[in-house]
Amino acid sequence: MCGVLTEALSIQLRRPVSLTVAGRTDAGVHATGQVAHLDLPADIELDSLPRRLARLLPADVRVRKARIVPPEFDARFSALRRHYRYRIATAPFGADPLRARDTVSWPYPVDLAVMNAAAAGLLGEHDFAAYCRRREGTTTIRELQRCEWIDLNDGVLVVELSADAFCHSMVRSLVGALLAVGRRQRPPGWPAELLTRTDRASEITVAPARGLTLTRVDYPADAELAARAETTRRVRLPAGSAQDDI
Amino acid sequence: MCGVLTEALSIQLRRPVSLTVAGRTDAGVHATGQVAHLDLPADIELDSLPRRLARLLPADVRVRKARIVPPEFDARFSALRRHYRYRIATAPFGADPLRARDTVSWPYPVDLAVMNAAAAGLLGEHDFAAYCRRREGTTTIRELQRCEWIDLNDGVLVVELSADAFCHSMVRSLVGALLAVGRRQRPPGWPAELLTRTDRASEITVAPARGLTLTRVDYPADAELAARAETTRRVRLPAGSAQDDI
Repeated sequence: MCGVLTEALSIQLRRPVSLTVAGRTDAGVHATGQVAHLDLPADIELDSLPRRLARLLPADVRVRKARIVPPEFDARFSALRRHYRYRIATAPFGADPLRARDTVSWPYPVDLAVMNAAAAGLLGEHDFAAYCRRREGTTTIRELQRCEWIDLNDGVLVVELSADAFCHSMVRSLVGALLAVGRRQRPPGWPAELLTRTDRASEITVAPARGLTLTRVDYPADAELAARAETTRRVRLPAGSAQDDI
Repeated sequence: MCGVLTEALSIQLRRPVSLTVAGRTDAGVHATGQVAHLDLPADIELDSLPRRLARLLPADVRVRKARIVPPEFDARFSALRRHYRYRIATAPFGADPLRARDTVSWPYPVDLAVMNAAAAGLLGEHDFAAYCRRREGTTTIRELQRCEWIDLNDGVLVVELSADAFCHSMVRSLVGALLAVGRRQRPPGWPAELLTRTDRASEITVAPARGLTLTRVDYPADAELAARAETTRRVRLPAGSAQDDI
């Protein structure tokens, strides 16, 4: 996404641009609520930019809105919170063809109540090392603020996840661990027990990328943007990069 | 759809099958509520058929449910009514990438109230010759029971259409004519005026296939199935085929 968007912006604005995004996504992961920032001269016409970019971008990338933000705004470091949704289809026939693109077919009986009980045990600030692909010099401590399974009643289950940030492969690992509980392959306490690990838990089956969507990124009020960016940089980056990176 | 489904059924049931569908759809048109029937020996296990077919079918075709119907049931001739939905995205950036598959990008201001006033003038039984690709020996008289534009409030408009049946290209021609009214390229009375024509109106821009979905087919109660099929065959087919054929 970032590559084609950078290219389209460079063409449209007739200059090289550098884009900072709130959350990098693996191949196959979707984003309906991605946020990115870039520095531009003041004379750029922003209102028509989404329409002009739509002509250059492939059909699977669109810019919904472009607006001016305070100089302190940083799409990556000012973010307070990221929200993700994971969709699975439990119907025997699999996923509705019109939503197959962002839905994983999971035609097994799963116990929603048990998955939600297990999810509750993951909430709060923990070292999610078991759920993360480790990057040298970065922390895997995150605060999971929401992890809730919801039955959409048409053969589709979603899990809504929110955290200050997610480390690499964390969302898909959490979903995979909870699905193992939902299918009774693991006991309900297993996902929380893994929080005591200091290394990646290789027995977790990472859920497929296609079911995952970054749905929203929260930012503080303008007055607090600079302070938030400073906090994030200090806490999250003892020795290197750690943007939200599922 | 019909071809791949016939093939998957033949493999799964280990015999050649012949499928009758409620509404044929052009390439690029979707169907979430398609109905089809076929004759099978009584010992076929139907409950597991959707799951077994899902393994053979491409991701864009799924059978939601299979069940036994009375011998008088005919997916095509017993149908009382077909329902279609057409989706357009009026947002400047176009269609949401996750729904681009069944949504036409139409980034122009359109007047919903004017389109609905024009649509009201089309309701009832008329000769829709202006809106149909004529087939020799068939009638183009249809009863349009619903034609209503709805604003989904996220930059998406849908038009819901229902009729006893639709002739070939009729739904997409109706949508195209109404969009011309919505963009003020034609007066509000124009779509109804075309009903006096006895031939296809070449000035109608047929709306693209991708926005159209067959959403539901209505059937009468079991006791009336045979009578309904008889009526349909007599009225609709003076000399040939006339299944719903958008």
